[in-house]
Amino acid sequence: MERNPFADRRARLVEGLDESRTDALIVTHLPNIRYLTGFSGSAGILVLGSDAVATLITDARYLSQSREEIGEVEIQRVVGTYEGSLVQFVRRGAYRNLAYEETHLRVSQLRFLESGLPGDTHLIGARGLVEKLRVVKDAGELETLERAARGLPRTLHSLRETMRPGVSERTLAAALDYELRQNGYEKTSFDTIVASGPRSALPHGRPTDRRFAPGDLIVVDFGGVMEGYATDITRTFSLGEPAPEAERIYRVVAAAQQAAIESVRPGIEAQEVDRAARHVIESAELGEFFGHGTGHGIGLEVHEAPWISPGRADRLEPGMVFTVEPGIYLPGKGGVRLEDDVLVTEDGCRILSRNHQELREISWVCYG
Amino acid sequence: MERNPFADRRARLVEGLDESRTDALIVTHLPNIRYLTGFSGSAGILVLGSDAVATLITDARYLSQSREEIGEVEIQRVVGTYEGSLVQFVRRGAYRNLAYEETHLRVSQLRFLESGLPGDTHLIGARGLVEKLRVVKDAGELETLERAARGLPRTLHSLRETMRPGVSERTLAAALDYELRQNGYEKTSFDTIVASGPRSALPHGRPTDRRFAPGDLIVVDFGGVMEGYATDITRTFSLGEPAPEAERIYRVVAAAQQAAIESVRPGIEAQEVDRAARHVIESAELGEFFGHGTGHGIGLEVHEAPWISPGRADRLEPGMVFTVEPGIYLPGKGGVRLEDDVLVTEDGCRILSRNHQELREISWVCYG
Repeated sequence: MERNPFADRRARLVEGLDESRTDALIVTHLPNIRYLTGFSGSAGILVLGSDAVATLITDARYLSQSREEIGEVEIQRVVGTYEGSLVQFVRRGAYRNLAYEETHLRVSQLRFLESGLPGDTHLIGARGLVEKLRVVKDAGELETLERAARGLPRTLHSLRETMRPGVSERTLAAALDYELRQNGYEKTSFDTIVASGPRSALPHGRPTDRRFAPGDLIVVDFGGVMEGYATDITRTFSLGEPAPEAERIYRVVAAAQQAAIESVRPGIEAQEVDRAARHVIESAELGEFFGHGTGHGIGLEVHEAPWISPGRADRLEPGMVFTVEPGIYLPGKGGVRLEDDVLVTEDGCRILSRNHQELREISWVCYG
Repeated sequence: MERNPFADRRARLVEGLDESRTDALIVTHLPNIRYLTGFSGSAGILVLGSDAVATLITDARYLSQSREEIGEVEIQRVVGTYEGSLVQFVRRGAYRNLAYEETHLRVSQLRFLESGLPGDTHLIGARGLVEKLRVVKDAGELETLERAARGLPRTLHSLRETMRPGVSERTLAAALDYELRQNGYEKTSFDTIVASGPRSALPHGRPTDRRFAPGDLIVVDFGGVMEGYATDITRTFSLGEPAPEAERIYRVVAAAQQAAIESVRPGIEAQEVDRAARHVIESAELGEFFGHGTGHGIGLEVHEAPWISPGRADRLEPGMVFTVEPGIYLPGKGGVRLEDDVLVTEDGCRILSRNHQELREISWVCYG
């Protein structure tokens, strides 16, 4: 792994800035700041000059931490508010053409800059400058993502005994989150989803006190963060012998996921992967029960580009990492979703979130 | 507790809208949507007409959930993108004067509305309309917050045996998060902070693999969410007999917290509470080591108004709930922070996050 990829990333970003005659870019989106500097605090604004000088504005809570994390970046302590400190900094630097992250900056922040900066300052709304770099992962990021993804099924497997009648959704979720931390994850990527019985038809069901009962479908959707990188998988289990309908939708979802994964290769459009999954589900006349996109990129955010959805014409490239997660949800009855994390390679893709142990030992029917 | 406070909240909000000649308010901030409807999903846009008709735009993942949660609110399924669906909805409603949440809406979203709506649509940036209601909690909210706050010290107390030499920050944090879930909290309010030894001088230290050693200060800053409401406390422990300097800063922080809490009553400005704490720390000539504000409101967000910071002249009112959390951080040596959640009452305040058991049984020196 590269020791310090951050300066390299900033240099690449600045190359793009020169072309558009921008003196400086104001970065307000924290995952973008982390990508460019390594700073992991929860508040900060980065100003990146076209001369590649980078300054992080942050508050007293993060001063020591930021000094540890980001060697070459200047640190400016907030005085008063963040926005006020930013205006002061920009005024001192006499920047005239300032780009900002239009998809992240709040309207009120823009109004503050407009009223606080000299009248001849040109504020330029820019989109996706940093995200464009982030979408293709470098070797260090891939090493982290792969390590993080590969540990997920093993973590879930260690809780197999907990998936028994009488155990609540909430208890399984709490145990899973604990196991993730014990296995070296910093935190969960998002609030763990455990949805059982009829609740498995809620694509984003939060764990409740509902207790598992024989015959339940149990959807477990979870992920862990390592070194800031988020992973995300879903497994669906049947508690005892599945009903024929449950078995049928499970098989359709598994086939849809397989078809989508097999479609992945550089050069195709993101929507083609979605179409591959959707085609299988529609062929089984269950299309109306698959209401979400097939996947999303993962990285410093658990939902990021590329978006594997209808209408997304972005071309896949080697080094992109995303989820493939079709599902079928029968309201009031139950649902199945299967999700893995895949890496686009030179000639296809590699599944990061499965391991041989899982293939051998885990079947989807447990307790029975 | 009121059975359904949401319609009442929407009615109060709409009263304010009539005055400013607004046809509808677009609410994009999820905690505000939850406050007004009960919807707890992670994506949605609420349009609240001046006729009090409320429509939630959400996607397929949340359709069943939102139908369960929000009785009287119309639900509109997203077609394409959220912003596109919003434009379609506004066009159909022929709204002319549309307010939006300026402190939450992204610039790119505003640009999309500007280009997608008829030229005579008036887009009005509004600030804090919903937050103004949220800052004073109603009886149901207070019942939830008090229940959630009161359980925190008990939860930490149950892990007292884990605060021993050789145990890592990460292990304590994972165990604490697990206990919170076992004690009925939906999730943590934020990433639990455990910072020990020299790392206790980092106000927002993330748990690492560092193992506790005799003589350490251990700062534990954590909270749990119940029914969507976030709580937040901090305790600092000494592992064995504290060094004289550690004992001194602990006593100063405790005195500062006590002074701040005693200052709380309706009618005073938020900054007076901050000043009470800061005065104690400055009198001990440690002012430079207390770099953050004294507290923040808690509720549907873990950081919300009122802000207990220098310069904040907002007047306290009965029903406000906020943290009081002074700290002293000696870089490279260690730090102490103490934090409780207080409710402003008619004649002073009540501490929600302490219980008699804690006062009797927990001293700050453990393992010794």
